[in-house]
Amino acid sequence: MSDRIRIGIAGYGNLGRGVELALAQAPDMALAAVFTRRDPGALKLQSAGVPVHGMDGIADFTADIDVLILCGGSRTDLPEQGPALAALFNTVDSFDTHAKIPEYFAAVDEAARRGNRIAVISVGWDPGLFSLYRLYGEALLPEGAGDTFWGKGVSQGHSDALRRVPGVQNAVQYTVPSAEAMARARSGECANLSTREKHVRDCYVVLEAGADAQAVRQAIVTMPDYFADYDTTVNFISAAELQREHAAMPHGGYVIRSGTTGAGTRQMLEFGLKLESNPEFTASVLVAYARAAYRLGKGGEVGARTVFDIAPGLLSPKTAADLRKELL
Amino acid sequence: MSDRIRIGIAGYGNLGRGVELALAQAPDMALAAVFTRRDPGALKLQSAGVPVHGMDGIADFTADIDVLILCGGSRTDLPEQGPALAALFNTVDSFDTHAKIPEYFAAVDEAARRGNRIAVISVGWDPGLFSLYRLYGEALLPEGAGDTFWGKGVSQGHSDALRRVPGVQNAVQYTVPSAEAMARARSGECANLSTREKHVRDCYVVLEAGADAQAVRQAIVTMPDYFADYDTTVNFISAAELQREHAAMPHGGYVIRSGTTGAGTRQMLEFGLKLESNPEFTASVLVAYARAAYRLGKGGEVGARTVFDIAPGLLSPKTAADLRKELL
Repeated sequence: MSDRIRIGIAGYGNLGRGVELALAQAPDMALAAVFTRRDPGALKLQSAGVPVHGMDGIADFTADIDVLILCGGSRTDLPEQGPALAALFNTVDSFDTHAKIPEYFAAVDEAARRGNRIAVISVGWDPGLFSLYRLYGEALLPEGAGDTFWGKGVSQGHSDALRRVPGVQNAVQYTVPSAEAMARARSGECANLSTREKHVRDCYVVLEAGADAQAVRQAIVTMPDYFADYDTTVNFISAAELQREHAAMPHGGYVIRSGTTGAGTRQMLEFGLKLESNPEFTASVLVAYARAAYRLGKGGEVGARTVFDIAPGLLSPKTAADLRKELL
Repeated sequence: MSDRIRIGIAGYGNLGRGVELALAQAPDMALAAVFTRRDPGALKLQSAGVPVHGMDGIADFTADIDVLILCGGSRTDLPEQGPALAALFNTVDSFDTHAKIPEYFAAVDEAARRGNRIAVISVGWDPGLFSLYRLYGEALLPEGAGDTFWGKGVSQGHSDALRRVPGVQNAVQYTVPSAEAMARARSGECANLSTREKHVRDCYVVLEAGADAQAVRQAIVTMPDYFADYDTTVNFISAAELQREHAAMPHGGYVIRSGTTGAGTRQMLEFGLKLESNPEFTASVLVAYARAAYRLGKGGEVGARTVFDIAPGLLSPKTAADLRKELL
């Protein structure tokens, strides 16, 4: 482990566990420590011999961690942890509240520059890989239209929103792309498809004892931002059925760019993703960008970065010469 | 035009004409001059007011061109022009002889460093965009298998190879992906598919008067590198039919990466491309990378680069802040 990149995990939920698994596939990286707000002694890791520390004392470990992967949530954890930890460590995170990215970037950038650290924000598949495909599509086919479709898959954010509705005991939400809208995007129709046109939302809800199903349904389908703009179906099921049929976390989606070159010549790019586990794949992306963060830091760079700023070759453990020979 | 990136085109065939069209879609770039080995006075451009010069005198124009896009062929033009012109100009080219990329990179790198220039080599869709997807696939799903499929589309290299066969007057070759092989790649079977398993090659050949069809067919299907390893069909047709049915230059393909994370969780990435015109799309990619070359040069970087070395954000005319806000 002596010459491997020493990775720390901050936050040990689904994503943190995924990072731990992804590190086992990285020949040049090693998990050096896990940091948690829970009782460190009570945390059971999947790997042996890795120390667990309390988040409180994380500042004592700056010399032991090359890159810290932040595995907290975007709602409450990262807005606070992102800037605080970027002042102490090179960091990578998966901040995914699209509308708040500019202010989050600014806060993390200021902290990372103050601490002479590099911080790669909003890494994962959307934002992340899908953002890259939107950028490549727009840059390579500037006259055209791009559409992103999500699903079929579980949206953690929308499932969480369901669980906050009074009367809901537990719930899972699937985002499903509309087949008709996808055909229109591929055809090069260049229609500006609305979010409502592009997806439907399927909800599987377990009610609390005595809850009013009609009131719950109404609260869901009228919820602004999350459901009001979509065709939303709400299915009430038992806790047992939810556990049996809806416990996995699959996801996926498509980024389609259709455009024209010359005198109306049609060209189309399409990227698709099919994931059996959303958090495990997001974790894989975080680990590859942690490798890039380490290299940028070694090169003396400081401040916040996004996937747009990272040369693809930095993600691979291979040398530039090997990449040219094997993959170009 | 005064504050636009001044682009030169070296070589005015299909690709050069495509670059000229792609530049019309770039708000921050302008075509400053075309260089040709033909008689400059006889060359008819698609755009008005752009000077045409002989390739012989190109060294006189180093102060007038920010980035020179090399539109010659990989067989004979670029091995000579690439290093020679990289010593004089910032360059972008589409060198696509995969096996010779390492030595071409070394020659261009040496010349560009000597001339304090930046040179981006092997840009287009394969090598180029497909190389990027192979790299992202391998880096993000290290335990898995990647497969590239080409077509259905016209391969210029294979069509040129057909035309060099004695007795052939004209010919077009389509590369067609095998549907069965694509299904296997998507299924995550992780079979190491052979090139022969992945594609078939369909040839449409016009014979010279008096040529021996059987000898031509035999020369084609046994040609090493190009056809011997594939299931190849040869169709003899008339010059009129070739002109009527096979004059377009469509192409496309797929890069599929199927892998596992954690304890056998299956994850799949797929990128697809459908092009009505191969040279026009290749030209669009060259123009976006010319923008990146200009920025790298402004930043004082020198030497050869590939798509692996270029941060995606450099391809877009938008600012980093706008990209974060609009596309991340």
